[in-house]
Amino acid sequence: MLSFECDYSTGAHPEILKRFGELNMEPAPGYGEDPWCAGAREKIRKACGCPDVQVEFLTGGTQTNAMVIASMLHDYEGVVAATTGHVSVHEAGAIEYTGHKVLELPQEQGKMSASVLEAYLHELQGDENAEHMVYAGMVYISHPTEYGTLYSKAELEALSAVCRRYSIPLYMDGARLGYGLMSSHTDITLQDITRLCDVFSIGGTKVGALCGEAVVFTHGNRPLHFVNFIKRRGALLAKGRLLGIQFDTLFTDDLYFTISRHAIRMAEKMVEILKEAGIPFFLESPTNQQFVVLENSFKEKLDCKVRTSYWEKPDQDHTVVRFATSWSTTEEDLEQLRSVLAGM
Amino acid sequence: MLSFECDYSTGAHPEILKRFGELNMEPAPGYGEDPWCAGAREKIRKACGCPDVQVEFLTGGTQTNAMVIASMLHDYEGVVAATTGHVSVHEAGAIEYTGHKVLELPQEQGKMSASVLEAYLHELQGDENAEHMVYAGMVYISHPTEYGTLYSKAELEALSAVCRRYSIPLYMDGARLGYGLMSSHTDITLQDITRLCDVFSIGGTKVGALCGEAVVFTHGNRPLHFVNFIKRRGALLAKGRLLGIQFDTLFTDDLYFTISRHAIRMAEKMVEILKEAGIPFFLESPTNQQFVVLENSFKEKLDCKVRTSYWEKPDQDHTVVRFATSWSTTEEDLEQLRSVLAGM
Amino acid sequence: MLSFECDYSTGAHPEILKRFGELNMEPAPGYGEDPWCAGAREKIRKACGCPDVQVEFLTGGTQTNAMVIASMLHDYEGVVAATTGHVSVHEAGAIEYTGHKVLELPQEQGKMSASVLEAYLHELQGDENAEHMVYAGMVYISHPTEYGTLYSKAELEALSAVCRRYSIPLYMDGARLGYGLMSSHTDITLQDITRLCDVFSIGGTKVGALCGEAVVFTHGNRPLHFVNFIKRRGALLAKGRLLGIQFDTLFTDDLYFTISRHAIRMAEKMVEILKEAGIPFFLESPTNQQFVVLENSFKEKLDCKVRTSYWEKPDQDHTVVRFATSWSTTEEDLEQLRSVLAGM
Amino acid sequence: MLSFECDYSTGAHPEILKRFGELNMEPAPGYGEDPWCAGAREKIRKACGCPDVQVEFLTGGTQTNAMVIASMLHDYEGVVAATTGHVSVHEAGAIEYTGHKVLELPQEQGKMSASVLEAYLHELQGDENAEHMVYAGMVYISHPTEYGTLYSKAELEALSAVCRRYSIPLYMDGARLGYGLMSSHTDITLQDITRLCDVFSIGGTKVGALCGEAVVFTHGNRPLHFVNFIKRRGALLAKGRLLGIQFDTLFTDDLYFTISRHAIRMAEKMVEILKEAGIPFFLESPTNQQFVVLENSFKEKLDCKVRTSYWEKPDQDHTVVRFATSWSTTEEDLEQLRSVLAGM
Repeated sequence: MLSFECDYSTGAHPEILKRFGELNMEPAPGYGEDPWCAGAREKIRKACGCPDVQVEFLTGGTQTNAMVIASMLHDYEGVVAATTGHVSVHEAGAIEYTGHKVLELPQEQGKMSASVLEAYLHELQGDENAEHMVYAGMVYISHPTEYGTLYSKAELEALSAVCRRYSIPLYMDGARLGYGLMSSHTDITLQDITRLCDVFSIGGTKVGALCGEAVVFTHGNRPLHFVNFIKRRGALLAKGRLLGIQFDTLFTDDLYFTISRHAIRMAEKMVEILKEAGIPFFLESPTNQQFVVLENSFKEKLDCKVRTSYWEKPDQDHTVVRFATSWSTTEEDLEQLRSVLAGM
Repeated sequence: MLSFECDYSTGAHPEILKRFGELNMEPAPGYGEDPWCAGAREKIRKACGCPDVQVEFLTGGTQTNAMVIASMLHDYEGVVAATTGHVSVHEAGAIEYTGHKVLELPQEQGKMSASVLEAYLHELQGDENAEHMVYAGMVYISHPTEYGTLYSKAELEALSAVCRRYSIPLYMDGARLGYGLMSSHTDITLQDITRLCDVFSIGGTKVGALCGEAVVFTHGNRPLHFVNFIKRRGALLAKGRLLGIQFDTLFTDDLYFTISRHAIRMAEKMVEILKEAGIPFFLESPTNQQFVVLENSFKEKLDCKVRTSYWEKPDQDHTVVRFATSWSTTEEDLEQLRSVLAGM
Repeated sequence: MLSFECDYSTGAHPEILKRFGELNMEPAPGYGEDPWCAGAREKIRKACGCPDVQVEFLTGGTQTNAMVIASMLHDYEGVVAATTGHVSVHEAGAIEYTGHKVLELPQEQGKMSASVLEAYLHELQGDENAEHMVYAGMVYISHPTEYGTLYSKAELEALSAVCRRYSIPLYMDGARLGYGLMSSHTDITLQDITRLCDVFSIGGTKVGALCGEAVVFTHGNRPLHFVNFIKRRGALLAKGRLLGIQFDTLFTDDLYFTISRHAIRMAEKMVEILKEAGIPFFLESPTNQQFVVLENSFKEKLDCKVRTSYWEKPDQDHTVVRFATSWSTTEEDLEQLRSVLAGM
Repeated sequence: MLSFECDYSTGAHPEILKRFGELNMEPAPGYGEDPWCAGAREKIRKACGCPDVQVEFLTGGTQTNAMVIASMLHDYEGVVAATTGHVSVHEAGAIEYTGHKVLELPQEQGKMSASVLEAYLHELQGDENAEHMVYAGMVYISHPTEYGTLYSKAELEALSAVCRRYSIPLYMDGARLGYGLMSSHTDITLQDITRLCDVFSIGGTKVGALCGEAVVFTHGNRPLHFVNFIKRRGALLAKGRLLGIQFDTLFTDDLYFTISRHAIRMAEKMVEILKEAGIPFFLESPTNQQFVVLENSFKEKLDCKVRTSYWEKPDQDHTVVRFATSWSTTEEDLEQLRSVLAGM
């Protein structure tokens, strides 16, 4: 069935499978000590424009958020996030499992504003009961957000400035970072992110890999014994090559960016098709995830022909669903979608 | 360089890569709801000779141990294991991270004896301070053990009987289960294990997969909301197909057993070669891991030509190292080893 | 200095100290097995009007909340609480330390409404992503609330009904329960609470004890091995008599209720005095905690003569402070307060 | 019934109750900010002979061990303890609950030897798999030990030297420290302990208090935000005065030492009485806990007349029981014991 359900429904970019085949019989040390992890690290450092960043590889998005946040927070700290943040809602309490509170702030279209953050930190700092409360120890943002939206460079700079003023690290969850960087409506580069964030992730799972997220610590701030930390939490792969080869491939000849750009082009075309069909948008997204509002009866009929993702119910009679494109979306898929919508 | 370092130093069995390629563009739901996970579950149920077992997939060995143990223990319980058990020593405290104590029992050649276990449980149960101590809530064994040794059917039956007498689940860590089942010196079948254990794992990472362990709950005892449990701990893959396709392939046409048998044959030949070269064995192992005692000076020279794994130091002048074979070990590798040893 | 800072600033009701003296040399078993714990349990069961409730003793309020909540939640569950709930804000993340999320709901004057709760649970239950979210496993309310307010019987019945409809236990944090029960503006009895809640606490620390909270499980639902559970978290006292004697005394001849009623009478008089002085109230509280709004300059002067508690800042120029009475507040204290206010 | 069951079966030293009465109506800030906590801190600093030590108060022994150990260990570390250590066996897994492994070493009469410790740390440090294991991050000893035995100054100096060589803090659990310091067979002073340990506790619960342990950080090494740390784990008392007044009293006019010395004298006399009665000792203890071996039938008869503590079963027919004296043991108690034994 035609599927725009998500950006992780197909396998891996063929180039990755090709490399798996080529390197298959080459023995290599385990646990991330293989030459491809080393190569991927080097290439990512170059892409970040900063030879000093530290790069580690993890398997999935929730795991990455939990490992980064828990390894960087002090015991007495929590992580500040938007109420719609992935860590706030859709990770089954993974952050709380590590013992830390998610301090939730109001959001707009999935984004946290610097002024809301500043007001919150200011009040918290002045509270006479601070020792009986949770200290703010990190700020979590996702880019693109859970609604596909993007921070502008000015917005990111403002958030970064607040974080630095309060000496709180800024973490960007980049599970879909490629789509954010290749959007037609962004003024943020990977170098900007490296400069403005203290740690961020470069998502592979949703951008052409079978699995895998790269974590970038931007200024020598990787927690001590990080390998032990993730081993202890079941997040260290014996065959680290699985992640190394994938990221080495994605960062060879700009593959990561090329396939992200492709998904964006497909998304832009998809938006046109959805608009043509008169389907109202829930919000405006400049990336590969598009949220539309469907009448329940329309959705029911559509469900028989196209797979999408349930998002939320704005009222009894309507449903917000997500259409996503990815590296593997084709022009044919879009033409099929056009036909399906035309026939409804 | 020639490597007998471990059974996870090469990629995946070529058949797995072939299937990845064939299914690559087929969209499928995430999080283990794909058709290949379903197929793999069905095939494993058949191999276990029991249509009712519940099968779940996880990514790695330490993760599997932590998820199984923590999801099945009550808060007031710990897991009983041999002092040499993987969970006791080589998982960076992953079990303790989940809040549970590893209750360590003496071992022989990596194995726990039923009589030692029974004596321990008997004493614990009679202790008047039981409420101030850790209750024994699970027994962990590995098969093959960390020393490559195997339980006999009689030994496993005795352990299982003790566990049932005390109403404590028996968990078998089968990170290398294939090599145990295909050993020339075992009388245990997969059906025996299904009958005698409450839960066990079927290791993929060390038996031809890129990653992945199947967990088998043998009698409807999978913990409630297990998917939420592993999601919350960062162990749920978005692209569950990565595990599904691998296990579906491994359990198609007995591939899992065929490649395990190959590794065993290679190990048997390797033992002959090592014996020919007059190298003393640390203990007798009937599986793919072989432990030998080397003089330090000899080891130093060998290290330049063959990669092996450091194990332990029995005294100042000697080192125990491990030679391992796997699905990817070839006759040529063995001939090369023979030459290297002849030339020393 | 004259102090209305809180209800835990003096020692214990003299009757408790007297009993300590009388029983001091009588040896008794430790860990809550002493005769006074037994006596206190019996008396509390009687006061609850239910011979089957199970009563346990803990040392403090935050400890009690953490022990009750963590021992009753399943791994995949969080606790629902008002955004102003003590567990949400003022326990330094004690609930999250146990691995569980506090699912925060909007409140009014510190209270959660049944309709807001029902809407939330309804939506959560219908969410297609439920397995990736935190399940609601308990509802936490405080009575009196953090703002001194009280639920009416109708409100409590409505909350209880929603909880039962969704099979979620209702927990009432009664750190100041005595003041709630003895308020002139309540229609709720201890028997009502026993009938409508699944578990609740009867606070001692803030109602005349040196320390101690009694936890009442209302229908045989005390978690298995609860003593081990609290021992493991450092909450089991060796000299359980410390808690047993105090609660036995408090529940002999209705002392708990008598001293609570005294504090309420003192609070009512204090309200009159504050009103006479023209001080505006932040909200109307029917219990021993009174919240007033002071101009900052006024507060500064007052601080030299009377100790109160900082609460929050409604704006730049004003501060909300709390005046509290307790078992130990005297008519003289109030007359002094009147003079101080008159002289300002 | 005559009781030598333990040193926490009676109330508090009368001087403590007297002070409770005198100070009862004096209001004071909560959470350890009261003047008596301050006074107690000052007096303990003086007793330690070191004006810079930091003193904190906690409620009980298991709580203290868990708070000290968990607040000082890094995530990747465990605590080294004797197999008979209180943290290893009798705290219901309280250390593991904090996520840390207890690394158990063999013991003799409850004591860890410096050479065994050194050999262990040496091997651990040299292990090539260290990153996959638990790092040793603290050494835990109890003094007196769980068997009433004591380290000599030479032994403590040797342990301390090993710890410093490996940069690992040494923690002494002094739940019964008074009895250790006042033993007729010790050459260790409180000043020695302050000099040789990095952190230690001064037990109150078992030495005349109703509850309470003082923790001494010996060189400015109290963990940051320690109050928040213990609040978050339910270990911070609202009425900190409960602990402050008790320790202030115990360290006024050397009361702590006087009552400890009394218990020691009583224990010495009790040993004579037990020897007279021909009862064999399990081991030689120089402090207030005495362990004897009873035939089961003898124990059964004794149990009707004297309360003692079950310890362990050396064989089918015998039981080791503990006789303990305390601040409240009287000459009359001993004479009664003599009569009981004479009459058997």
